[in-house]
Parts: sequence; C-alpha cells; structure tokens
Amino acid sequence: MTALSTDVAGIGNAIVDVLAKADEAFLVKEGLAKGAMTLIDGARAEQLYAAMGPAREVSGGSAANTLVGVAQLGGKAAFIGKVRNDQLGGIFRHDIRAAGVAFDTPPTTGGAPTARCLILVTPDAQRTMNTYLGACVELGPEDVEPAVIQAAKVTYLEGYLFDRPEAKAAFVKAAELAHAAGRKVALSLSDPFCVERHGAEFRALVEGHVDLLFANLAEARALTGADGAAGAAAALEGKCEALAITMSEQGALVQGGGERHMIPASPVDTLVDTTGAGDLFAAGFLAGYTRGKSLADCGRLGALAAAEVISHYGARPEADLKALAARHLGTGFLA
Amino acid sequence: MTALSTDVAGIGNAIVDVLAKADEAFLVKEGLAKGAMTLIDGARAEQLYAAMGPAREVSGGSAANTLVGVAQLGGKAAFIGKVRNDQLGGIFRHDIRAAGVAFDTPPTTGGAPTARCLILVTPDAQRTMNTYLGACVELGPEDVEPAVIQAAKVTYLEGYLFDRPEAKAAFVKAAELAHAAGRKVALSLSDPFCVERHGAEFRALVEGHVDLLFANLAEARALTGADGAAGAAAALEGKCEALAITMSEQGALVQGGGERHMIPASPVDTLVDTTGAGDLFAAGFLAGYTRGKSLADCGRLGALAAAEVISHYGARPEADLKALAARHLGTGFLA
Repeated sequence: MTALSTDVAGIGNAIVDVLAKADEAFLVKEGLAKGAMTLIDGARAEQLYAAMGPAREVSGGSAANTLVGVAQLGGKAAFIGKVRNDQLGGIFRHDIRAAGVAFDTPPTTGGAPTARCLILVTPDAQRTMNTYLGACVELGPEDVEPAVIQAAKVTYLEGYLFDRPEAKAAFVKAAELAHAAGRKVALSLSDPFCVERHGAEFRALVEGHVDLLFANLAEARALTGADGAAGAAAALEGKCEALAITMSEQGALVQGGGERHMIPASPVDTLVDTTGAGDLFAAGFLAGYTRGKSLADCGRLGALAAAEVISHYGARPEADLKALAARHLGTGFLA
Repeated sequence: MTALSTDVAGIGNAIVDVLAKADEAFLVKEGLAKGAMTLIDGARAEQLYAAMGPAREVSGGSAANTLVGVAQLGGKAAFIGKVRNDQLGGIFRHDIRAAGVAFDTPPTTGGAPTARCLILVTPDAQRTMNTYLGACVELGPEDVEPAVIQAAKVTYLEGYLFDRPEAKAAFVKAAELAHAAGRKVALSLSDPFCVERHGAEFRALVEGHVDLLFANLAEARALTGADGAAGAAAALEGKCEALAITMSEQGALVQGGGERHMIPASPVDTLVDTTGAGDLFAAGFLAGYTRGKSLADCGRLGALAAAEVISHYGARPEADLKALAARHLGTGFLA
C-alpha cells in the first residue's frame, strides 16, 4: 500500500444508528439511563427495537462520525472498523466512503451482524443510546494496517474501544505505531460510564500515549475527580499537548502550550438531536489542528461543526461544513 | 381470523427508501428523469447506490405511507405487501407495525432482497425515485387475505402495482372482494409514467372498480388527455364517487356527489423533500372519509397531512398528525 499522507486515521466501532423519538415515560418503562450509552446484547436489542417507534437508519459510530466531519471540512481521513457483509454493513460502508473517507477493513462473513445503536431522542433533544456491538467484537490488532496509521498526521481513537480486550489491543498497537512514526495520537473519552469502567487504564493511557484529549464535562470529571471544567483542565495540565472539554451550550474549554481559552457554543436555530455533538466538535478541532491552526481556532471550528450536527437527526453532517466555516470564520480559513 | 372492522386496508410495494441529497448535475450525469419514478434492476441499483452520496434509510412505499398516515390520524389500517426476511425487510416490518398498522403478509425466505427506492432530493426539494422492486415481485393474489379486505371500509390500491401481472391480479382480486362485501375501493395513480404505461387498463379500472380516485395533475392529464385540473375533473365526472387531484402549492381539487371544491395548500415553513406528499394527502382524505366527513373536510385533512410530510426528509409523518388536525381543523374534528 502506498502510504499517501492523510490527516486523520480513526479506529472505532462501525455502527448503524437507528433513531426514534421517545418520551420520558418510554425511557422509564424500559429502564434506560437517559443520556448514556449502554451496551446491550442481541436479545435485548431485538426486544427494545420491537418496543421502539418507527425509526430511521443513519450510519454512525463515534470515530466514524468524526472522520466524516474531517473529510467534509476538506481533510483526508481513513477509518478502521468492523462490519459484517450484511445489508447494514453495506449501508455503513457506502455512507462512509460516499462521504470521502477511506475504509478498507475487510468485513466478517459470518457470526454476529453489523452493529447497531438504538437511539431514543426525547423532546429535549437528548439522546439515549443502546449499542449492540455485533460484528464490532471481531475488530482486533490484525485489522490495524500499519501503513494507514503511519501515513496519518493524527491517529484518532474512540474510548468505547476499551470495552473489549481485542479492540483495546488494536488501540494500543495503533498508538505505538503512530508514535514510532512521529505522529500524534488523539483520544475521545466517549462516555462517562465508559471512563468509570476503565478509569485507571484511561489515566495511564492519557499520561503515556495521548497527545490530544477530547472529553465532555462529565467524562473529564470522571477521569480527574475534579468538579468543574477548570479543575479538570488544571489536573490534566501538561499531561497532553492539547485538551478540549466540551460543555454543551456552555461552549468548550481548550487548553495547550500554556494557553487556555473558553470557546462559546455556536448558536443553533432549533436543537433537534444532540447525537454526534462531541464527535463533530472533535472533527472541527482536528481539521483545524492538522492545518496548523491556533488552539482557539481549532476550538471555534469544533463548535461550528457541533452546532450543525445537533440541528438535525443523526450524527453525520448534512449541511456543507466548508461553506459554514467560510461564512463564520472567513473565506480563507480552510483555504 | 376474526374480521375486526378496520378503516383502510392497503396493498402496495413494501419498500425501504434510501434518501440522499443530489444536485441537478448528478441527475444529468446519471441520466435520471427528474421528479419521476423509474424502475431499475439490481445491477443498476448497486451502481447508482455506489454513485450516490451518504444516505439515510426510512421505510416507504406509496400505499404503506398512506396507511401510516391513516393510523396516525386515529384510523385503523392494515397493509398487504411483500418483503424478504432480510435486515431491510425487518426494518420495514418494524416501522409499519410501530406506526400502528397491521402487517401480516409472510416474507419471502429466498430470492431477491427487500425492495428499495433510491431517492435523490435536489435543492428545490423535488425527489427523483429509482425503485428496485426486489421481493415485491413475489406479491400475488394468494397474499390478499379475504378477511383483511372484507373488514375494511376502504381498500386502497397503489397504481404502481400495475407494473407486474401478479400484483395486478392481487389488485383485481382485492377490488372484487371489497365490492362483494359492500366496501369501497380507492386507487392512487402513483406516477404519470405508470399511467402512460397502463392507460387503457387504468381507464377501464376507474370506470368499473374505483370509488375514490387520487391523482396529481400530471397523472390526471395522462389518464384523461385533458389539459388542466378542471378539464380532467370534468372528464371524470360521474365515473367515480369521489376524485381528488393534487396540485402541489396550488392545493387540490376535490369532486364528488355533484360538488367540486378547491382546497388551498396548507402553508409549510421550509419545504425540504416532497417525497410522500401525494401519499399523505390520500391518508388525510381517507381518514376523513372513513369518519364520514364532508368532501371539503376530507380535502383539508389531506392538505394538512401532505404539508407535514414535505417539511422533512422521508415519506412518513414525523409530527403528531392528530394534534396538527386539532390545531388547524378544531379540537373536535377527529373526536
């Protein structure tokens, strides 16, 4: 494989999102932890799906969403993740490639079907996620193609991978390959419960392997034990090159190289579905970072991409992100 | 099977819509007839899908969309149509049942996959449809469960069924069963090209079997040879109990029992995707008709349901249609 230079290579769960509206009573009746990501097995996935209302299917997956955002902002992106050779796997593969992201991980040909995430969106636009990992459990270090990692300025890893030993091994292999090639490693903490499940390992990882860290406030608190964003940022000072803590409508804190900035949230006409907000913040940040933008500008581009994705259902951008960036940050910003 | 009374039983193609944005240049490059429904084979479906941008999957099918609208307006509805036992078939079955429509046609267990319609939505909100019928070709008269038809006040048939002899036989069987049981038969003409393909048969059918006829202006012109809505309505005067000709932002003409009314289009904040406009007009009309509403009120409820579905992507309602009807037509309207 010719190692063409890319901006971001991501490793994550390859998931098709199944989005339906639900009211609070449905969450209570089904015992769902509002706002969280819960792992479920195949039987529970069928039971919950049968109980859900009419849905729409949109390709998702945290790192995959981020890479689509990077590509739509003009960056070169590649994804490593596992689907099965079934209809949902075909949908995932089509959508990520159609968005301009390279994706060549071979699908499984038997076993569990392609992963899906049953997402209930409540009237307050909050999403409650229930993930059946399916074929994702087959992702292992053998799927981490060294040339893909070595060619990327940044290797981006989703914290959800830590829920399975084989994926964690893929994760560590990728981080080591990236650093050996003089590249950067980014980590998204994904979910406060995921951080709680793997707290000590995440802390060791951040100190030993991670250059760019993305977290929302709940995740940053779970990782550091600090109460607020400022406390969490102080606890992580000097432990990674750059840190971003996203705080929904409060904007984001970005920190690095002795600087700290508060980035205001970009305004949203109608908040529809917060699925993918963190993923797209990371996309904007990384698109800026790989172009050598300032820390504050990386944060601004992140806030802009996040605002777009929460204005509609689904976790992948629908508007022209490049045009949005030109309108809000200047026509030469992404030139 | 106990023949519980239902309002509308529909027979149609069981299709999952695959919706993507496209510009005019894409339609030209792919040689697509803008605004039309074109039948494509499996190879072309794969080729066109690969060329399309990232998509979302939403259950569709013309009659199926109408029945979902009837159910959401408080009516009892049942669907007859053919999927395969694959993932897309599971999605179709889930969505229509979750919307409250009975659906018990057994799926095929081999052969072609569940049907899909590749829909390109241009910036003017027009949809261009490319249908791979897949498992739908297996629908035949044996799938028309007499009890389902006999129990329904109205049997609703989509014109697209005329594209296959077996489905046409199912169509005729259903119409005969309905009339033998003293019930009504409704027909949607579906598409001007479909009308042109089967003009003489449609005309014989309308005169011999159809009580309620739904057409848009292009379909009404293709059927009658008349130039405008008034001419088409005059040509069809007395040939069926009621007629509705939909004319996009010009509203609809409804005619029956010696009356003729022009129904203004309901206002839409942002026109997003016209997929399903005709299907949902029929839903509102039928929901009114089966409650014994006046011809004009049936038209008003149709216009309201159509306006909802064109304000978002996909051909199934997303807002609470009952609440909409209460707000615009009075709280007691659907009581």
